[in-house]
Amino acid sequence: MTTITRDDIDAMEKLYRINLINSCSGYKSANLIGTKSKKGETNVAVFSSVTHLGSNPPLLGFITRPDVVPRNTYENIKETGVFTINHIHQSITKDAHHTSAKYPKEISEFDQTDLKTEYKNDFFAPYVKGCRVQIGMQYVNEYKIEENGTILIIAKIEHLHVNDEILEEDGFINLAKAETATINGLDGYAVPKQHIRYPYQRPKKL
Amino acid sequence: MTTITRDDIDAMEKLYRINLINSCSGYKSANLIGTKSKKGETNVAVFSSVTHLGSNPPLLGFITRPDVVPRNTYENIKETGVFTINHIHQSITKDAHHTSAKYPKEISEFDQTDLKTEYKNDFFAPYVKGCRVQIGMQYVNEYKIEENGTILIIAKIEHLHVNDEILEEDGFINLAKAETATINGLDGYAVPKQHIRYPYQRPKKL
Repeated sequence: MTTITRDDIDAMEKLYRINLINSCSGYKSANLIGTKSKKGETNVAVFSSVTHLGSNPPLLGFITRPDVVPRNTYENIKETGVFTINHIHQSITKDAHHTSAKYPKEISEFDQTDLKTEYKNDFFAPYVKGCRVQIGMQYVNEYKIEENGTILIIAKIEHLHVNDEILEEDGFINLAKAETATINGLDGYAVPKQHIRYPYQRPKKL
Repeated sequence: MTTITRDDIDAMEKLYRINLINSCSGYKSANLIGTKSKKGETNVAVFSSVTHLGSNPPLLGFITRPDVVPRNTYENIKETGVFTINHIHQSITKDAHHTSAKYPKEISEFDQTDLKTEYKNDFFAPYVKGCRVQIGMQYVNEYKIEENGTILIIAKIEHLHVNDEILEEDGFINLAKAETATINGLDGYAVPKQHIRYPYQRPKKL
């Protein structure tokens, strides 16, 4: 084992540190967040920080860093109150990753990639066409993380669209069957082929 | 596609809703959090909400729900200020999942499974022996998520122990090589076998 201390981390070359610390929390969710400004400019961007916060009410969160560089996703959400979360599957990982390029707000990543918009149920924000899970989200609140200036966005699920083939009888969404990707570090995309499910655990007889 | 509305979610049978909403954010990180009370009682518990918050300073976060049932992990962290994060790999997924059983505080999950404690660098909290990534964490702050009573714990990395074979030249930790697991929903464990890395993306020539 290599042991790395906090002093070592602080002294690291920046890219090495970013690769290391982004990898060390384990696998991350791989999602595209779709938004549209009031003026009608669409935006889509890859996020690896979408996290389940609770099922009742159905809340998800994600981390953004709005105060360092212009963040079109955050601005559009603040302006309109809505966004979509779309699972990244194997065949779109390259285009999904390209959305991390810093385009000016008037250029849509939907025009610079093969990703296509899709609109449903009169929801204002664009979904990403072909994604096997698409979620229409309503902004609820945000918490500024004082320790590093990031923001945790809290949002509630308004519409959930799931491909019929991956939705199982007990509500489980089969991400392996969907070829859903997961993110390793900043730039690694992995696609699990299978999973094992374990039953609800009770204490062993003592 | 099956379209599910917020009203449908609210009307769902509880277990169906938990399976569905826990699956819909995509793959989650699979970690064991190790703690020890001041009295010396060890605890280890599976968490799927550990998230990267930032690299400089190196901060990770996770979500816990301390006010509903007794949460030994949260109590020990508040009492001692420290905990460990340990990546779950393929061969320990079953024992890792068993730590979700609700044992009383005086019973250690280390005694009820084949998971073993490991102590290094005089760090008070126990690591999980054999994990390829082990992180010694110092509590920094917490944010109460008012919308559902959960708490986001913010902590900084003090020590990072990484298996030499999975630490690459540019700081990337190769989770596929480590056979690190990722969590699907409440109870699904998947282990990606490979990944693809994409280069840093710049806007296409317009």
